Amino acid sequence: MTEQHLMLHTDKYQINMMYAHWKHHTHHQKAVFDVYFRKLPFGNGFAVAAGLERIVRYIENLRFTDEEIEFLARQEEQYDLAFLEELRQFRFHGDLYAAVEGTLVFPNEPILRVEASIFEAQIIETAILNFLNFQTLIATKAARIKQVAPNDILLEFGSRRAQEADAAIWGARAACIVGFHATSNLRAAMLFGLDAKGTHAHAWVQIHESEQEAFDRYAEALPDNVTLLVDTYDTLRDGVPHAIETGKKLAAKGKSLKAIRLDSGDLAYLSKKARVMLDQAGLQDVNIVASNDLDENIIVELKAQGAKIDSWGIGTKLITASDNPALGGVYKLVAKEQDGGYEPVIKISGNPEKITTPGKKNVYRIINNETGKAEADYIVMHDEVLEGSKEPLMLYDPSHPFIRRKVENYRVQPLLTPIFAAGQRVYELPTVTEIAAYHVSQLDLFWPETLRKLNPEKYDVVLSDKVWNMRKELINQHAK
Amino acid sequence: MTEQHLMLHTDKYQINMMYAHWKHHTHHQKAVFDVYFRKLPFGNGFAVAAGLERIVRYIENLRFTDEEIEFLARQEEQYDLAFLEELRQFRFHGDLYAAVEGTLVFPNEPILRVEASIFEAQIIETAILNFLNFQTLIATKAARIKQVAPNDILLEFGSRRAQEADAAIWGARAACIVGFHATSNLRAAMLFGLDAKGTHAHAWVQIHESEQEAFDRYAEALPDNVTLLVDTYDTLRDGVPHAIETGKKLAAKGKSLKAIRLDSGDLAYLSKKARVMLDQAGLQDVNIVASNDLDENIIVELKAQGAKIDSWGIGTKLITASDNPALGGVYKLVAKEQDGGYEPVIKISGNPEKITTPGKKNVYRIINNETGKAEADYIVMHDEVLEGSKEPLMLYDPSHPFIRRKVENYRVQPLLTPIFAAGQRVYELPTVTEIAAYHVSQLDLFWPETLRKLNPEKYDVVLSDKVWNMRKELINQHAK
Repeated sequence: MTEQHLMLHTDKYQINMMYAHWKHHTHHQKAVFDVYFRKLPFGNGFAVAAGLERIVRYIENLRFTDEEIEFLARQEEQYDLAFLEELRQFRFHGDLYAAVEGTLVFPNEPILRVEASIFEAQIIETAILNFLNFQTLIATKAARIKQVAPNDILLEFGSRRAQEADAAIWGARAACIVGFHATSNLRAAMLFGLDAKGTHAHAWVQIHESEQEAFDRYAEALPDNVTLLVDTYDTLRDGVPHAIETGKKLAAKGKSLKAIRLDSGDLAYLSKKARVMLDQAGLQDVNIVASNDLDENIIVELKAQGAKIDSWGIGTKLITASDNPALGGVYKLVAKEQDGGYEPVIKISGNPEKITTPGKKNVYRIINNETGKAEADYIVMHDEVLEGSKEPLMLYDPSHPFIRRKVENYRVQPLLTPIFAAGQRVYELPTVTEIAAYHVSQLDLFWPETLRKLNPEKYDVVLSDKVWNMRKELINQHAK
Repeated sequence: MTEQHLMLHTDKYQINMMYAHWKHHTHHQKAVFDVYFRKLPFGNGFAVAAGLERIVRYIENLRFTDEEIEFLARQEEQYDLAFLEELRQFRFHGDLYAAVEGTLVFPNEPILRVEASIFEAQIIETAILNFLNFQTLIATKAARIKQVAPNDILLEFGSRRAQEADAAIWGARAACIVGFHATSNLRAAMLFGLDAKGTHAHAWVQIHESEQEAFDRYAEALPDNVTLLVDTYDTLRDGVPHAIETGKKLAAKGKSLKAIRLDSGDLAYLSKKARVMLDQAGLQDVNIVASNDLDENIIVELKAQGAKIDSWGIGTKLITASDNPALGGVYKLVAKEQDGGYEPVIKISGNPEKITTPGKKNVYRIINNETGKAEADYIVMHDEVLEGSKEPLMLYDPSHPFIRRKVENYRVQPLLTPIFAAGQRVYELPTVTEIAAYHVSQLDLFWPETLRKLNPEKYDVVLSDKVWNMRKELINQHAK
């Protein structure tokens, strides 16, 4: 698997901080870190949590190899040998909570929480952010595409434009957890149990004497699974008629042409023309697959023009999230061990939106029992317990805290699930199929207005009075 | 290393085409594929070739494992067992030529050429494009940053926002081959022999009772390498004065504070103020490092405002190439074996710029002996030999072919270097340091007008008459 040798997949400053703690004998001090992001990508109304399987496997495999220790020994910092020996014993013994993959998540709420010695919590920051930022980004992009083509076949085709090999496979998986049907990448399919799809490229046509010969030969070799790429020379003059000819030959053998693929030109015009040509030839069941720099915005436009496309092959713009290629998830210290308990800590900033929310916290999703829809996510201190309708809840608007509304008949779902407890995994990893089904159940908790791709309704993340007051107090302390 | 288990890092249609060839006994037919891109990213005047080391290691390790064969056996295509046995024997026996890493390359010229059986040439397409597209993209982005800060220290800090783990390490390497000095990613540093740099994060400050205590303790633990992050609370009120205090304590021990780091706020204003404060405290040698969503455009603006920054930590915008996150390199069949020779083949398209340039070709860089500068890249058929000044060369303008200019006193450099010959590697992989030095020598071949980041002069890629005429002829044939 790809999680091998990831111990050093970290920023050097993590090791330096670990070393400085070790030198001062403070490395066993416990700390709580929250992972959250501040802004939704793509102007979307939600993000889809992803990356947890990768994080779990990473943490389970955290060991320094001899090669890695020797590399550290050669660094300009000249770390003490005893420190390097301490690293050899490194294991993760902490607790980790996370929003499980497929959950809808929102800005400024903890979507993952690490509670561990500062020594252990520090080194895993970089990799956790790297995995979670990328996979959550791609799952969110894919969810936008799914929103505009809920009943079509969606194929992930991005490997050649992905940002290196890991992005290709983990991105393919992220797409499939929100309902993509298959990927072209065989390695992703093997490692994650995804369906793999693919037919032929232009080269197959070019290497034959004629397009007709190329189509016929392809259909002879793989008669049960024939999608023909029709744009190598001239789509409507050559490609579609040749595909129809091959389709008829297949029909004569009791087989059938599955689809044609359009990969260039005006997809609205060509798909409508091709549909008519196929139908007139009696090939009503032959699907039309389109590809070529597609994303949710182009798909909406094509559908508005009445394009006759049944299946979408999505490459570059999905696998790189090209209109917003990074999610800015951060990993922030929120509490430190002090006198046997936790003391909340804050990070102040000239940008008010960058001030952290201190304390070890939990998040509850508040679900209205009458509508079945989520009303808001509610952040509480770890020792505040929310049990649903027993007491009405006052939710203020986070941007306009003087506006409050009361929720009375509700139930609560904790957003964060225990994944590791004292270093032991306590969570069973679901399959991609299971995650995709769970994701659908999570979408059902939200109004269509929150899910739409353009100008979605903002979903509220609200602090409890206790969290709000504690944050205000710490800000005031630092202002002094 | 990360090249393990990459045999299936390919699109399924490659396997299906291989299978269809195998079924028709055409899989030993030889073919020539060119890799090229059509458009420069970022509006830049050049791209920097990168990805070859990754490609070389990938090809050398190409073997199907039992697990991979068993996975293929379960696919819906129900491949013949004899085909799967053939895959077990798979090795690359072909020739591969490439522009070596660090070379400046331009649109519409082959930057890599594969000549192999169609069976072998097909399966490596996806991975070659994946590696080359990403690494060339990042090297090009990094080269733009180097252009605007040629004398400053450049640090790659992007791991937490990279598109998964491979992107983090290969992207760090791509930055270093064009002159970045170090990366924060330890794994990249170990695997590729890069320098790793890093100091401490906000968490180090937050976990201590005071910022002063945090700075002092860090300096005690790592006295030879102290860069202090000064923006956890208030940069000018707290951070810089505390850093100065620590700097003085270091000086009293005969050590010195190396730098302070600004990671938020108005970097122009803060760096100028901090510089004055440091200088007034007698700490003229303390550098100022800046980070926070930087790229070449922001660096130019900061320099124009007189920012006092010596070193730049570049993260998200470099490692994701966020303003242009994919390079559209393609892998196109240009010739097929026919009657013992090669027959050029073409791909026609409704978009004229997507029509391929057929034939097995070479590329020469034409260097003017008087200026020492490159005049153009000149694409010839494989059997056309160019020997320099013996004969004057007519170069036409590719967009306006009626405009021609004559070059008389010139020498030529072949752009493509033999990497594999009959499956054997014939190229020794240089170190990153060697590549960086070579890259500098390549930059020297170009006028500053081609290298500038905004509105660069276009550098010409010209077809020889033979290539031009053959292309025209094949287009005409297909128009009939």
